[in-house]
Amino acid sequence: MNNDLILLGHGSGGRLSHQLLDELIIPALSGTAQASQNDAAVLEPVSGRMAYTTDSFVVDPIFFPGGNIGSLAVHGTVNDLAMMGARPLYLSVGLIIEEGFGKTDLGVILADMRRAADSAGVRIVTGDTKVVPRGKADKIFITTSGIGVIEHDLQIHGANARPGDKIILSGTAGDHGIAVMAGREGIKVGCDILSDSASLNDLVAGIIAVAGDRLHVLRDPTRGGIATTIKEIALQSGVGVTLREESLPVNPAVRGVCSILGLDPLFVANEGKLLAFVAPDVAEQVLAGIRQHPLGNNAAIIGQVEAAPAGKVRMETAIGGLRAVEMLAGEQLPRIC
Amino acid sequence: MNNDLILLGHGSGGRLSHQLLDELIIPALSGTAQASQNDAAVLEPVSGRMAYTTDSFVVDPIFFPGGNIGSLAVHGTVNDLAMMGARPLYLSVGLIIEEGFGKTDLGVILADMRRAADSAGVRIVTGDTKVVPRGKADKIFITTSGIGVIEHDLQIHGANARPGDKIILSGTAGDHGIAVMAGREGIKVGCDILSDSASLNDLVAGIIAVAGDRLHVLRDPTRGGIATTIKEIALQSGVGVTLREESLPVNPAVRGVCSILGLDPLFVANEGKLLAFVAPDVAEQVLAGIRQHPLGNNAAIIGQVEAAPAGKVRMETAIGGLRAVEMLAGEQLPRIC
Repeated sequence: MNNDLILLGHGSGGRLSHQLLDELIIPALSGTAQASQNDAAVLEPVSGRMAYTTDSFVVDPIFFPGGNIGSLAVHGTVNDLAMMGARPLYLSVGLIIEEGFGKTDLGVILADMRRAADSAGVRIVTGDTKVVPRGKADKIFITTSGIGVIEHDLQIHGANARPGDKIILSGTAGDHGIAVMAGREGIKVGCDILSDSASLNDLVAGIIAVAGDRLHVLRDPTRGGIATTIKEIALQSGVGVTLREESLPVNPAVRGVCSILGLDPLFVANEGKLLAFVAPDVAEQVLAGIRQHPLGNNAAIIGQVEAAPAGKVRMETAIGGLRAVEMLAGEQLPRIC
Repeated sequence: MNNDLILLGHGSGGRLSHQLLDELIIPALSGTAQASQNDAAVLEPVSGRMAYTTDSFVVDPIFFPGGNIGSLAVHGTVNDLAMMGARPLYLSVGLIIEEGFGKTDLGVILADMRRAADSAGVRIVTGDTKVVPRGKADKIFITTSGIGVIEHDLQIHGANARPGDKIILSGTAGDHGIAVMAGREGIKVGCDILSDSASLNDLVAGIIAVAGDRLHVLRDPTRGGIATTIKEIALQSGVGVTLREESLPVNPAVRGVCSILGLDPLFVANEGKLLAFVAPDVAEQVLAGIRQHPLGNNAAIIGQVEAAPAGKVRMETAIGGLRAVEMLAGEQLPRIC
């Protein structure tokens, strides 16, 4: 019996489960050797409306340039809360582990979850661990959920885009998806392409401070990329959108890999970028604020909202044409998150 | 392309994902054809302390006598909240689906999740769906998280068992584990063994009403069974426990399967039973109340808390001996939840 590997018994709820919790999982995630180990965490009262979200992470490979499945799971859930304008408070972590997975790798993943949570100012307060036989899962899947508090009365949601709104993208398109794919396929891209996986809650707090009720929509363009996300918002709000291809920031190395592989960066997932739809009179000021943030140096206004045609997204191409932008059809890059 | 099967593209975040959400998942879980589909659900303010929990479900088979992975996931999370004395309010659902899984089966599972949620008075408000390639998961895994409100000032937790406390088990031991195992192995057990999977929040509300601050510990004996759960509580509270073998209620069919297979019902998982540690002066009244509840007909006092030896659990056997009860070692019945 190899002491470095996860065994079925580690998911039994019995002695081995307790050992794994006490020796590895709880110290890594909570920072204390002992936690109360009741069926649920008790949270102090939260004043005001809350945001609540969940995401399952099945990224392949679990370690990729710029991150891993653990940090990604924290960033993804923090960002889903931040996109509602909520301040993230608490996370839960559900682990599904394949028998034979290495405890060392598990330790690295958990340590990075903790680091990401600390950095975002959020606490991991409850969790669960299951183990399935070899071949019944792929290494490790992580499902995080999160609770945040909404400390404002703003209406920030996908149905609130208004004609005239400027659309700000907080940085370059497609870095996460291409970094994961390069990691999976063993494509040598040097140090030029790293996942953008990051927590956006601090950036969002700054945007809200500047824009107030002139901030109408926030969304992080993850699966399906910027194209799919903007199409969703156009449909939810019943508005049109015009994007300018020349304005879209793309890391040259990402553009290179995309052109070799026939991918459009507009459809490739990001995990540390946001789209902000803001009233035109405040757009330049919001953009300037985002650019001063470490996660927003490459931010740009990439398009604007039109009164019509409702639900349609069009791209002004570099050569002056107009093409329709639709949602991602099929699956371009599986298991990107 | 078979229209009845889940495809990788259903996890892409693109057009197929939206179709699956709009046509199957959201109508099944929320009961409305349209939901807001933002990154997070917005919850109205909750007054008081909250309980927060998560569980991942990997049960095999996904359909078993008396339930399926969907109803089990709701019951399990509702119960984790109820065991803190919390009233369950909201659930999240993270689905990890293997490519090629049937949409019909998915629909049945989701419908049963909804039915279980309705029955427990809890709302499924947010979710996520991922699809992994064939062979990278086993049909479907479900991770639920839940939020409940704690509407009392009682101290109900595993470190609060006190010498003299009576230990009440709300029904027969081991039904869930044996039902799942019978389903998996194709053992013919007729209609005599069904999973006990059920939501215990209503039963808990009744116990709190009767016992008040004389209720010290609530715990549902799931993975690892009654033995492991009581050992945990003895360790957390620094007390001893004496159990009486003759008092343990066991369905005769479950006892039969256990004796054939060499299993001890004391270590087999339940999913609709609870252990209540209550002060002796209120024990009979609490027991009577539990027995009047549809989920508690077979409840019994199975033992009591002793001042010493701390952390030790002993069983008085039917022939008058005393044996030590330890936590489940290794994995007796994998993937029981």
